Amino acid sequence: MTRTIVASATKEVIIGFDQPFCVIGERINPTGRKKLAAEMVEGNFETVINDALAQVAAGATMLDVNAGVTAVDPNATEPALLVQTLEIVQGLVDVPLSIDSSVSAAIEAALKVAKGRPLVNSVTGEEEKLEAILPLIKKYDVPVVAISNDETGISEDPDVRFEVARKIVRRAADFGIPAHDIVVDPLVMPIGAMGTAGKQVFALLRRLREELKVNTTCGLSNISFGLPHRHGINAGFIPMVIGAGMTSAIMNPCRPQEMEAVRAANVLNGTDANCHTWIMTYRDHQPAAGGTAQAAHVDSSSGGRRRGGREARRARA
Amino acid sequence: MTRTIVASATKEVIIGFDQPFCVIGERINPTGRKKLAAEMVEGNFETVINDALAQVAAGATMLDVNAGVTAVDPNATEPALLVQTLEIVQGLVDVPLSIDSSVSAAIEAALKVAKGRPLVNSVTGEEEKLEAILPLIKKYDVPVVAISNDETGISEDPDVRFEVARKIVRRAADFGIPAHDIVVDPLVMPIGAMGTAGKQVFALLRRLREELKVNTTCGLSNISFGLPHRHGINAGFIPMVIGAGMTSAIMNPCRPQEMEAVRAANVLNGTDANCHTWIMTYRDHQPAAGGTAQAAHVDSSSGGRRRGGREARRARA
Repeated sequence: MTRTIVASATKEVIIGFDQPFCVIGERINPTGRKKLAAEMVEGNFETVINDALAQVAAGATMLDVNAGVTAVDPNATEPALLVQTLEIVQGLVDVPLSIDSSVSAAIEAALKVAKGRPLVNSVTGEEEKLEAILPLIKKYDVPVVAISNDETGISEDPDVRFEVARKIVRRAADFGIPAHDIVVDPLVMPIGAMGTAGKQVFALLRRLREELKVNTTCGLSNISFGLPHRHGINAGFIPMVIGAGMTSAIMNPCRPQEMEAVRAANVLNGTDANCHTWIMTYRDHQPAAGGTAQAAHVDSSSGGRRRGGREARRARA
Repeated sequence: MTRTIVASATKEVIIGFDQPFCVIGERINPTGRKKLAAEMVEGNFETVINDALAQVAAGATMLDVNAGVTAVDPNATEPALLVQTLEIVQGLVDVPLSIDSSVSAAIEAALKVAKGRPLVNSVTGEEEKLEAILPLIKKYDVPVVAISNDETGISEDPDVRFEVARKIVRRAADFGIPAHDIVVDPLVMPIGAMGTAGKQVFALLRRLREELKVNTTCGLSNISFGLPHRHGINAGFIPMVIGAGMTSAIMNPCRPQEMEAVRAANVLNGTDANCHTWIMTYRDHQPAAGGTAQAAHVDSSSGGRRRGGREARRARA
């Protein structure tokens, strides 16, 4: 059984097929968040702190930490900023962290100060990346996210993406890194732009699980890019990827609809023992106001009715 | 490609792996609905009419019609009541219908007056049922729901349920009924009572699709029986069964959360071409009032951010 172990100073989390889905909170990331980037450049970590606390309160299993503020020379400035951000977050919350940077020096600087066993996000199939990141993964004995693209970019052909993932797993093995420390991101395309994006990912996830026996992750909300009511698409995508074998995702845990989908899929996937988390979360749940209350009343009898119906029929037959 | 064709007088629907999920509205069923049963016995079809219109308006692909009011002798009374109910419904809406009864004489009476090509709900693996129903299926050239239980009841072992389904398909073939006219119900157990119920069904659905090559259905809300916030479990179950290959379900289309899950899963399963139905349904969607508006704002940038992040990183690397 594939088990990727991540840990903070005090808390260990296992990512695996028989484990609850691992929700990696994506919020601490200044890319595309100008206000957050400006704050972090000024040494103001108020939003970082709020985002860390809010994501853990919302049920994040881990937090991703990215300090990629736009800078003239990220190689010079990002290591110190990532270390500072990481230390603030790990001093604040007890969940394991994911060190997220495209700057290898920043990843190494963060690995030096990180407590426990962080996840590194990420390596790709690009030669330069493999040579820069895999030695760090081996040296610090940590797991790594492997993104299925290489120098040629992101292939639209899922077989090519699978082969990139296989190459990374093999190269990692050459460094003495076991497959269970590689968490493959098969890359999720927006379904609005590519109608086969969903089926591609589901097929890839099965192959990654069965052939490479690796854990998997993705930037979840990519799937709904460009569509209206993205949360509805995301909330449908989560059970489908979990059913296909995905074991973690980088996503926003502060979205109730998406987190409800995670909890439901854990129940249905058999990783919420005795439905304990579901029952504790929703035991006092009331249907939303308005039209739904009536419908909820109607439906509360329907499962019993359907069962009753078939049982009644057998009894009558 | 397995295609089960159902039709009303004016409208044909294909149930199939490459088709949008077929939602069979379950509401016209007096089992467990005392008020509806009393109305129907009195010849009052107001609720039947309202339920028919509401379900079609909510997006039902087909409607199930059951007239199983509690009676001393259903064999004597149900045929006429089912015929009356069916004629009212088929005069009112243009979707195909499912003739739902445990009384073989009622099924035959309804088949005589049904327009188009209705679905018959149901046959089981019980000898008596096979002998009573399969000749009707052949005679009227209609598809049938095959429930995976037999004289011994419902097995908790999914392999036994698969074998019952296989037996029904074989017996149907003996009558000259093709597999594409058998819609297997693998039987969904409540996940609150059996933690493996979800994984059982997902595995069964894959086998039914790959080995027997049949379409499938289920009484969807059984899965959440006994749990709080059943709609959340149902809405997570729908994408998972669709991902596993289920092609229809008997469910309540008047539940917005469940129907949103169906529409999202159709997008993700590649059966909502160009996301047309999704976009038409949700193009003016506004996040719910209260806390979600803020979160929605946050998330509307996150897919782009994540993509931007990775693209930015590659650009910077």
